[in-house]
Amino acid sequence: MAILQIGAGSVGWVIAHKAAQNNDVLGDITIASRTVRKCEAIIASIKGRNNMKDPSFKLEALEVNADDIEALVALIHGVQPDLVLNAGPPWISEAIMEACYQTKVSYLDTSVAVDLCSEHQQVPEAYDSQWIFRSKFEEVGITGILSSGFDPGVVSVFAAYAVKHLFDEIDTIDVMDVNAGNHGKMFATNFDPETNLLEIQGDSFYWEGEQWKQVACHTRMMEFDFPEVGIHKVYSMAHDEVRSMKEFIPAKRIEFWMGFDDCYLNHFNFMKDIGLLSQKPITLQDGTVVKPLKVLKALLPEPTSLASCYTGKTCIGTWIQGIKEGKARSVFIYNISDHEVAYKDVEHQAVAYTAGIPAITSALLYFKGNWKAAGLFNMEQFDPDPFLELMPSIGLNWVVKELEPKTLLINILK
Amino acid sequence: MAILQIGAGSVGWVIAHKAAQNNDVLGDITIASRTVRKCEAIIASIKGRNNMKDPSFKLEALEVNADDIEALVALIHGVQPDLVLNAGPPWISEAIMEACYQTKVSYLDTSVAVDLCSEHQQVPEAYDSQWIFRSKFEEVGITGILSSGFDPGVVSVFAAYAVKHLFDEIDTIDVMDVNAGNHGKMFATNFDPETNLLEIQGDSFYWEGEQWKQVACHTRMMEFDFPEVGIHKVYSMAHDEVRSMKEFIPAKRIEFWMGFDDCYLNHFNFMKDIGLLSQKPITLQDGTVVKPLKVLKALLPEPTSLASCYTGKTCIGTWIQGIKEGKARSVFIYNISDHEVAYKDVEHQAVAYTAGIPAITSALLYFKGNWKAAGLFNMEQFDPDPFLELMPSIGLNWVVKELEPKTLLINILK
Repeated sequence: MAILQIGAGSVGWVIAHKAAQNNDVLGDITIASRTVRKCEAIIASIKGRNNMKDPSFKLEALEVNADDIEALVALIHGVQPDLVLNAGPPWISEAIMEACYQTKVSYLDTSVAVDLCSEHQQVPEAYDSQWIFRSKFEEVGITGILSSGFDPGVVSVFAAYAVKHLFDEIDTIDVMDVNAGNHGKMFATNFDPETNLLEIQGDSFYWEGEQWKQVACHTRMMEFDFPEVGIHKVYSMAHDEVRSMKEFIPAKRIEFWMGFDDCYLNHFNFMKDIGLLSQKPITLQDGTVVKPLKVLKALLPEPTSLASCYTGKTCIGTWIQGIKEGKARSVFIYNISDHEVAYKDVEHQAVAYTAGIPAITSALLYFKGNWKAAGLFNMEQFDPDPFLELMPSIGLNWVVKELEPKTLLINILK
Repeated sequence: MAILQIGAGSVGWVIAHKAAQNNDVLGDITIASRTVRKCEAIIASIKGRNNMKDPSFKLEALEVNADDIEALVALIHGVQPDLVLNAGPPWISEAIMEACYQTKVSYLDTSVAVDLCSEHQQVPEAYDSQWIFRSKFEEVGITGILSSGFDPGVVSVFAAYAVKHLFDEIDTIDVMDVNAGNHGKMFATNFDPETNLLEIQGDSFYWEGEQWKQVACHTRMMEFDFPEVGIHKVYSMAHDEVRSMKEFIPAKRIEFWMGFDDCYLNHFNFMKDIGLLSQKPITLQDGTVVKPLKVLKALLPEPTSLASCYTGKTCIGTWIQGIKEGKARSVFIYNISDHEVAYKDVEHQAVAYTAGIPAITSALLYFKGNWKAAGLFNMEQFDPDPFLELMPSIGLNWVVKELEPKTLLINILK
């Protein structure tokens, strides 16, 4: 048995740790990235934490240019994995999927479908470039599991669980995500500042009344009382799982909400207002041309550097409202993750932790045969029960909380 | 009669307009700068506003490199002025003073003595590089008038007025400066962003108990109820006039305070915290090396562009506490300037307006003979009465307000 992981960023860090903790099932582990040094750092951390369950299996680092299909095919032929785990950025997914098709090896990826920051790649088109591989994967009999992170990912499994066990009819699905942790910096991003700050500036898309609605960022806000971490303001934001849930789970409205505190938004709006978040080049007095966002990226802390000082918790879940046995029902299914607990386990923070564990949970279900079928699948298309049964043992709990059914108080800002 | 103005920035803009409005006394006006286009823009504005009192006098633009003493001497020989008005940055003052000495032409400058942003040039050393010209000016029988702006400048005249008319003994002198105007931008500076943002980051120096005290920026704060513009938070800041008043006006404490609203400080502290106010070069991902403060400068609005939309008022004054006829006395002597009034008069905002008018008031007193003597003088060394009598007719009112004598409530922050 063997797996090949491509990508050595924050989420890749957690995936590799968790793969090592479960290598009795997954076998040999190869981590490949454009920057082999990053793979080696992860391996050093795994060994430092004694996270190899069975030290007799292989754990190695390789270099690969994941844009290059031929190089990927050669890599897969060399490694001979049972499953390729793509932990890289969205723009390499198609090349890896093509290489998996050519080598007939199953495929799993971890978070976003497309680069929502790019033009002509918005939520209504998310997954289009991946779903075209469906017939190819069926043809060669391999399994593809898309977006097996937390959100996108587990939040759709929660929705599938609600469909299967808790509701006869679903009205609304609201994915709720708040990081109530504290990294001790006045401003920092939990992943690449450039991608993050572009994403947050983008319009939000939500599905309502059989059509897509598009609104400017931070203009739809509500307050939500999250378990354990309390009341937070959350804002409607573009996120891939709204697209896939719209395809697979009938609902009157599907929307993604992310928590931003006033202080963060104040700084964010200030930077946007003065032009610091722009990708448009400016010319300095001495003639140097720079993109302001690239300067900001160079100033802000390296996201991985935040993990060791992170305290507090994240709460991410799916809030479903609808009808069960003729009565209105409102349920919030969620996970709480603690940054310090994550750091003790894998030397990283909870944002990466929650995104990485679901990938290994899915990989284990693939190896066990529960989530193994010819074709291409989003998480909500599989049976949620074995996933939710397994996930707590990999590191993420989940809770079903009954709420009082009610109409959402959405504030329209600006 | 003729004057030569060197410098064509914001303050130079106002000085030139006011000189033109008084050219029946001052005669021909030459404006010289490294960038002759800037002088020409000022002349176009003066003519557009019909601000030439006597159109028969000359108004011309010339180019000069004010770092170059020989070029300055040649310029002065060519123009043959009765007075040189230095409206340039502090680092050109010594060269112009030397040229005035060599050509035996009187000298006047407008605001700051030294570049307080530079190392080894702090408040306790302010004026040192200029005062060494005192004996030279006496030797050739020319007059030198230093720092004839508002603060430094008029605030010292207010103190001299208090000494002459209002107090037997002075305890404390607090220069109070608030710009309660609104330029409609989320963040902007009223003069060069680089100089301004460096100055604000510097330590504050105040004179107390016969010695200099040094404290970090924004760590001494009090609230003051300014006439017309209301209560504002003001912070102890490094400013040149504390040095000259310490030399010429005995007091137990002399300090400069500037108003910053919470929102401004919030943005300022944020920028400082993420490193955007730093002059230390950083390297971007693509290898480009930039100084963050230079990037910010390129992003922020050109200060002169703010004038046309500026509303609200400035209040700058000198708060003196002491003893008169055995009784405690507290007096605030101040000016109120309105940004819109300034714009109507000279197409600029009130910050530049208050700094430019005192230079022309002093120049007129020099031409009239009231403020004309061989040597080098700070404003507080002259008789304040003719100055304060003349200034309102040039555009700046002043008011003496009796306050309740009290101990200052200074908050020590951080």
